[in-house]
Amino acid sequence: MRTVVLEDIPALARGAAVLGTGGGGDPYIGALLAEATIREHGPISLAAVDDLDDDSVVLPVAMMGAPTVMVEKVPTIDQVSAAVETLAGYLGKKPTHIACIEAGGVNSTIPFVAAAQLGLPLVDGDFMGRAFPELQMVIPSLYGIRATPMTIMDEKGNRGVLDTISNRWAETLARSATIDMGCSAIISLYAMDGEEARKSYVPGTLSACIDIGAAIQAAQKEHRDPVQAVVAAVGGRKLFAGKITDLERKTETGFARGIVTIAGFGGREGTVMRLYIQNEILIAEIDGATEVTTPDLIMALDIETGEPITTENLRYGARIAVIASPADARWHTEEGIALVGPRYFGYDTDPVRV
Amino acid sequence: MRTVVLEDIPALARGAAVLGTGGGGDPYIGALLAEATIREHGPISLAAVDDLDDDSVVLPVAMMGAPTVMVEKVPTIDQVSAAVETLAGYLGKKPTHIACIEAGGVNSTIPFVAAAQLGLPLVDGDFMGRAFPELQMVIPSLYGIRATPMTIMDEKGNRGVLDTISNRWAETLARSATIDMGCSAIISLYAMDGEEARKSYVPGTLSACIDIGAAIQAAQKEHRDPVQAVVAAVGGRKLFAGKITDLERKTETGFARGIVTIAGFGGREGTVMRLYIQNEILIAEIDGATEVTTPDLIMALDIETGEPITTENLRYGARIAVIASPADARWHTEEGIALVGPRYFGYDTDPVRV
Repeated sequence: MRTVVLEDIPALARGAAVLGTGGGGDPYIGALLAEATIREHGPISLAAVDDLDDDSVVLPVAMMGAPTVMVEKVPTIDQVSAAVETLAGYLGKKPTHIACIEAGGVNSTIPFVAAAQLGLPLVDGDFMGRAFPELQMVIPSLYGIRATPMTIMDEKGNRGVLDTISNRWAETLARSATIDMGCSAIISLYAMDGEEARKSYVPGTLSACIDIGAAIQAAQKEHRDPVQAVVAAVGGRKLFAGKITDLERKTETGFARGIVTIAGFGGREGTVMRLYIQNEILIAEIDGATEVTTPDLIMALDIETGEPITTENLRYGARIAVIASPADARWHTEEGIALVGPRYFGYDTDPVRV
Repeated sequence: MRTVVLEDIPALARGAAVLGTGGGGDPYIGALLAEATIREHGPISLAAVDDLDDDSVVLPVAMMGAPTVMVEKVPTIDQVSAAVETLAGYLGKKPTHIACIEAGGVNSTIPFVAAAQLGLPLVDGDFMGRAFPELQMVIPSLYGIRATPMTIMDEKGNRGVLDTISNRWAETLARSATIDMGCSAIISLYAMDGEEARKSYVPGTLSACIDIGAAIQAAQKEHRDPVQAVVAAVGGRKLFAGKITDLERKTETGFARGIVTIAGFGGREGTVMRLYIQNEILIAEIDGATEVTTPDLIMALDIETGEPITTENLRYGARIAVIASPADARWHTEEGIALVGPRYFGYDTDPVRV
């Protein structure tokens, strides 16, 4: 069992933002919250997915909403634990573990807040191996595991419990509530036992986040190419390097959507990359040809520092590297592609793997 | 204790549609549902508000949504009792009484379905003495009684429990869920004990509905003027008679909104009445001058039969009488006007009483 101490959090938040593929919220906000609770409650134990007993009660917790809004509306520590405690109360069960839904700056660190507050271990894994924008887009959906009962809380004290006929309906109702709540809310959902968790989790995600973050820090310190360090750590490849020359961005129906245009350099002069975003980076196109698509991971990094850039922090003129890595194999099944492939998001292209 | 038998339902539904001031849904749909359950489970006992014990557990139930949609999407009997049972389960209390939130075609009869299914008496009263379009617009709000915890159910099996910091927030979150659910849902809310019910109910509403409906039936049978019979039964006055010459109507943000223009006859030739609607008829204007406004009751009746016409059933060319009657005195307090006065609905006029 690994223990996460205060000093691990910056690496964790960085690595989570890498796997967050642009979504999942600002890693620094997530880090601040996690650091505050570890400082108060002490280090957090990570429980390996394979070590979970059948009768474990695993309660995942996450933030829902547009990352562009999360920057300005930081969740409170009480809001996070209240979401978990309300779900436990509704289920009439005592949680044994807290867990993550996705990898992403905020959504990999928010669960540390709940784990610390409630004195529970955190499962070392997540439901995606990356970040996706909608609630039903998790590997448990492929196993028929239900998102609900779920809870949703805002920072003012409003709360809801939803119990729906499908995970897509959970997304619909929770999305509307999130919008009413000011485009961000804390949710707890996909409560499951240890047996379900063992089969439906992507194991080791939190450890992987810490390792990726540590690789960036080490490369920076030792003046090695930090982008190559990330490529090696995620087992991916570099797609492109260039300067952002155009950003179309809008926050609509509770999501941050956009298209980013990047003019190539470093031997790719005259070449243009476009990234298509819905909270996460979903498609990378080079000169109009699809290069890589969801479900594989497409990540934007600062070309000098290797730091992951969340979509809301992409800026005109920024010099970035775009890298990609393979998704969990279960996302490449027919059911996986139906749930998170490019066509679900309205892009008229077959999936292209890295 | 009065008992409501199968034969009372047509009168009840008619009278409720009168007090529903155009809102509250189609009385015939409500009557069909109530008749079906009484036929199966037998007559329903009405409990006088003043007879409620302090420790009674009163669970009101209603339909939420646009009446224009209710016409096509009839709730199911199971959906109604599930809303009540889910709330009872969340509260951990066994209900002793079912109750109505408002007077209105569907919302005065839906509670009969729950009472029959659960074998409980129904409180003879409501929270408004009429119908209003938003959840927080009830006399219990004036006493600081909370709408939540509340439940919301659709006919597909989706359900939610909301627990909010204000009754206005309950309206906001439940309205969005209702829209997602197809613009109609069953809700159970304002759970209260007998002491709270005694002070915040409008007593006798269901009996009054039956009496008003019976007055219409009697006038029709005896060939007396049925409009005058309604005026006498509600203690109001006739404002206008004429033919509908224009209807502007739209269903937006979950409400049925509209403006109805009526050309006068019977000595009022050349005179024009306009009715302003948001589910209910809220303002009556004659030749541009405000004649009566919310919170007083404004009702549209078929001029030949005296039958109440719900706003979704107002038709071009229809010959109608418009009558008005005074609202419960608590609606005319400063707090009452703030909650349901014309300015709340966006009309730039002070309240005008009948």
